[in-house]
Amino acid sequence: MSAIPEEFVQQASRLSDAVTRPFANTSKVYLRGSRDDIRVPVREVIQSPTQTASGTEENPPIPVYDTSGPFTDPAVAVDLLQGMPDVRTGWIVERGDTELLLGPSSEYGRQRRADPNLDSLRFEHIRPPRRAREGCNVSQMHYARKGVITPEMEFVAIRENCRLQELRRDPRYARLLRQHRGQNFGASIPEEITPEFVREEVARGRAIIPANINHPELEPMIIGRNFRVKINTNIGNSAVTSSIAEEVEKMAWSARWGGDTLMDLSTGKNIHETREWILRNAPMPIGTVPIYQALEKVDGKAEELSWEIMRDTLIEQAEQGVDYFTIHAGVLLRYVPLTADRVTGIVSRGGSILAKWCLAHHRENFLYTHFEEICEIMKAYDVAFSLGDGLRPGSLADANDAAQFGELETLGELTDIAWRHDVQVMIEGPGHVPMQMIRENIDKELSDCFEAPFYTLGPLVTDVAPGYDHITSGIGAAQIGWYGTAMLCYVTPKEHLGLPNKDDVREGIITYKIAAHAADLAKGFPGAQLRDNAMSKARFEFRWEDQFNLGFDPERAREYHDQTMPHEAHKVAHFCSMCGPHFCSMKITQDVRDYARSHGLSEETALAEGMQEKSLEFIATGAKVYREV
Amino acid sequence: MSAIPEEFVQQASRLSDAVTRPFANTSKVYLRGSRDDIRVPVREVIQSPTQTASGTEENPPIPVYDTSGPFTDPAVAVDLLQGMPDVRTGWIVERGDTELLLGPSSEYGRQRRADPNLDSLRFEHIRPPRRAREGCNVSQMHYARKGVITPEMEFVAIRENCRLQELRRDPRYARLLRQHRGQNFGASIPEEITPEFVREEVARGRAIIPANINHPELEPMIIGRNFRVKINTNIGNSAVTSSIAEEVEKMAWSARWGGDTLMDLSTGKNIHETREWILRNAPMPIGTVPIYQALEKVDGKAEELSWEIMRDTLIEQAEQGVDYFTIHAGVLLRYVPLTADRVTGIVSRGGSILAKWCLAHHRENFLYTHFEEICEIMKAYDVAFSLGDGLRPGSLADANDAAQFGELETLGELTDIAWRHDVQVMIEGPGHVPMQMIRENIDKELSDCFEAPFYTLGPLVTDVAPGYDHITSGIGAAQIGWYGTAMLCYVTPKEHLGLPNKDDVREGIITYKIAAHAADLAKGFPGAQLRDNAMSKARFEFRWEDQFNLGFDPERAREYHDQTMPHEAHKVAHFCSMCGPHFCSMKITQDVRDYARSHGLSEETALAEGMQEKSLEFIATGAKVYREV
Repeated sequence: MSAIPEEFVQQASRLSDAVTRPFANTSKVYLRGSRDDIRVPVREVIQSPTQTASGTEENPPIPVYDTSGPFTDPAVAVDLLQGMPDVRTGWIVERGDTELLLGPSSEYGRQRRADPNLDSLRFEHIRPPRRAREGCNVSQMHYARKGVITPEMEFVAIRENCRLQELRRDPRYARLLRQHRGQNFGASIPEEITPEFVREEVARGRAIIPANINHPELEPMIIGRNFRVKINTNIGNSAVTSSIAEEVEKMAWSARWGGDTLMDLSTGKNIHETREWILRNAPMPIGTVPIYQALEKVDGKAEELSWEIMRDTLIEQAEQGVDYFTIHAGVLLRYVPLTADRVTGIVSRGGSILAKWCLAHHRENFLYTHFEEICEIMKAYDVAFSLGDGLRPGSLADANDAAQFGELETLGELTDIAWRHDVQVMIEGPGHVPMQMIRENIDKELSDCFEAPFYTLGPLVTDVAPGYDHITSGIGAAQIGWYGTAMLCYVTPKEHLGLPNKDDVREGIITYKIAAHAADLAKGFPGAQLRDNAMSKARFEFRWEDQFNLGFDPERAREYHDQTMPHEAHKVAHFCSMCGPHFCSMKITQDVRDYARSHGLSEETALAEGMQEKSLEFIATGAKVYREV
Repeated sequence: MSAIPEEFVQQASRLSDAVTRPFANTSKVYLRGSRDDIRVPVREVIQSPTQTASGTEENPPIPVYDTSGPFTDPAVAVDLLQGMPDVRTGWIVERGDTELLLGPSSEYGRQRRADPNLDSLRFEHIRPPRRAREGCNVSQMHYARKGVITPEMEFVAIRENCRLQELRRDPRYARLLRQHRGQNFGASIPEEITPEFVREEVARGRAIIPANINHPELEPMIIGRNFRVKINTNIGNSAVTSSIAEEVEKMAWSARWGGDTLMDLSTGKNIHETREWILRNAPMPIGTVPIYQALEKVDGKAEELSWEIMRDTLIEQAEQGVDYFTIHAGVLLRYVPLTADRVTGIVSRGGSILAKWCLAHHRENFLYTHFEEICEIMKAYDVAFSLGDGLRPGSLADANDAAQFGELETLGELTDIAWRHDVQVMIEGPGHVPMQMIRENIDKELSDCFEAPFYTLGPLVTDVAPGYDHITSGIGAAQIGWYGTAMLCYVTPKEHLGLPNKDDVREGIITYKIAAHAADLAKGFPGAQLRDNAMSKARFEFRWEDQFNLGFDPERAREYHDQTMPHEAHKVAHFCSMCGPHFCSMKITQDVRDYARSHGLSEETALAEGMQEKSLEFIATGAKVYREV
């Protein structure tokens, strides 16, 4: 019998409709891989037909990369108390290199499990943790380097392709797949993402698949500059207490709007239990900053942190299933003085905690000195490193300075060590950087860190717009994504001001989806322009419903449209509210084309022949500006 | 006695508080030029002092470029019925090259004046129009080429400098004025903008000062890539009827948030009268697309347009005081077929009207064939050309195609003609362009159009985010601004969906202020980083009020902050809601510095000496994480 309070059960067993409502005119399909248990989710937007003079013309469904997880699948009965369906356990078990433990091997994990006061907070169906067998390494990088294509690798290959090969053979898509040539700054994106290509990229360290063996609910995804640019979102109860169910709902909300990974930055009480609920319900990789929890364990006194506490925290979280850890091992004692003359000092929480520790003990950062031991933990569960940029600039004034770039070099040194353990690595980046200095960040990262995936916060391209920092940073994010950043950490409108609510989260995510997609387009990622082309065709043909549904936020598009033209009839109107009937350029263009077509002429011919009588006819037919639908 | 209805008088004589309320902790000052009647507005943000261990340290006021006009000046009693103060009549009259007409010389202007039914709509204090005397040319370009520095040129020089030379001599600003080196793609921005430099740039055609002699209320501003990047906003009653007072209030609203110029795109009845109200109250240059009104005059039938109707419309509007006209003279008959294979055809309203006319008559665009006559009108009032991009792409698919670039070449040809008349020119640009293809637009514009200022809409870098097109376009705008675009035409969140309301206008403007300012920073415009540096210092010192007031939207910043931390006390809190006290990186950084300072050591020394006992002391003092305020 559950000790969980009835009201929590009520709340947790059914997420709000806003979070689970399937997108309109969209079907969720699963693409099967080489085996039945590889089922890759894709969303397909169903379009309405085009009205032509001679009848209707079908518009094919547009598949889009889908991060929304089981939450938006009408076939799945979402129940947070049960957790999400298991995707990966079969794959993990059949590799035969792991063992089930009897219970948590971290001291803290055992304490929490044993505490009866936590019964009412605890997820009911906690599985015993799994760990690599003695001498084994269970990282995707390790398999990749051994030449093994894992189901995870195949899964992400199918996911990245998003049915592109099929579509290329289907004549209905021929025009929609036309795309401009990209400029990709030395990336090497193939025309088709094969499982073997995924393997090579992971082996090379140029991409990571964050996939802890204790997170079998995960729908695998890949982070690397030869793949689609990804976005990360953050949740965290922080100073304000929010209920566990609220945190889980936020995670599902993030998945809905397009978050590819999610960092749980909670810093309050019960973060161990909250994390369990999140992980058991999370279809995306979950990242954390373990030093935050370690600091809680020493009551917020940075100077009392120790390697032992940190080690226990890493194991605790790894056994829950956290997929990547931000580790600020590059904040070296000698870099701290370099921040003395900065306008905004150290703005990374983790960075400042470690700087304080270094200063207090006058010793080198214990994450740096114990880095190989951390690698041993990471490879026993396949936790990926997100090497933290504790010295990132917090203002334009401090951008690209000696502290920042000194740390980046050290992150390169650590990358090299991690890779010797076959541990996956990505590198965190700024911050606040004016546009002309963004390029240097990625160029230096690629060279110092041997092309390990770059994962950046923004960067914000100006400091003067609090309340709009999703935009100041979205501008920088689009650029750095184009230049080669693999994942963009979102920023909400509340940045620098307060804690984001659900609206802010959605606003931040869509801004970053735009930045990431703009980067894919600019790099020429195969098939990236399909959705844009479908949208543009729908726009030209005044298929309003299709325009809404093809967008990143169909609900807002519909809402905005309806504010001016609320009637259902207007959704097929051959003009819109902006210009009105007389001034509708799309309508006029259509008239021109209709004229040419109805006279059996190409538009070129109609014009080139310069037939005066045709002009006169056009005047007659041109009077009929509106077609009946 | 006024025939204007009493309720309108009530509404128009006092704008809403939201529009006229001065910004908090801000004083409006006027910088005097070489003569008493050159008074250049600047906003100065008053900062609070920094709390230090030894007392308080003053933070100097930060001057910011001010577009808000007399509306935010508490010393001005705003009364729309009277119009704004006269800034320029003295300057215009003393040049002795103009004459006052008895009344409108356009036929339409005379009709409207004579119609008694319009008495209740008409601005009461219409001045007789002014025109260049026979054989004279009153354009700023003409004066510039004759070597004359006009008061308008001096005004904009002072405005661009924004007190920078003074600040450079004031030690309080030394640190705040530090700035990164820009990358400006061949622009040649001097360390000080002198009146002579303005004259040279205007003479060269590389910058324009839109300043119709019939718009003496104007506070002059300059558009050119060696000056601050500007933004344009749009208003227009369009399909929905909004009252004249509402339109004027929208204009003031636009000025408040940072609109540098404003286009009146109204397309309904009474646009002549609405325009008069707007102009008489507008401190910024007003642009229009005269073909819209011409089309109204022929009941929306594009094929019935004629040069005579257009000519009369140009004169009508020039005599009201419109500062720049969008003229789609580059939409040539031979380019129209090039749009036949496009996904979205012709999306410019003006472009589609002219394409239809060309097709209907099978003759060359009458704006092209009558271009020299248009120049004659422009120079008689100093109306600047905004050569319209009637064939701009309406989707990524159509970006940078033959139609678009063909038209751009023709705009270059027209620029050359206009310059032979000493008429000021700027060139309109796209549209929808993926990031990797943006640069080509500005490069081609600079070369085809001989460096005439580029004025772009966005560009939108993806088509798939209706509801967020201020962001899709803000990303492109920041980049093209950096590359050399002189003015960015804003886009609101309602683009492609409906008509913007006031919130949308504000959101669009701030997005574009961010893009323009980010471009100034990236180009290294002198002094651009001052505001960012002041903000960052305020942020580091937890001066919340100063952070709000230094931002582009102080009201929203305050509102967002207060949602999480509503108490007044929190506005001096030495931490914020995001991380809470334990995790505040700024606070920890300050602790580190305080420690070093209190021990009479530089932070470097404290570390370099490696004294163990100092570490111990730090632990003791470090416990005191919060300082009392």
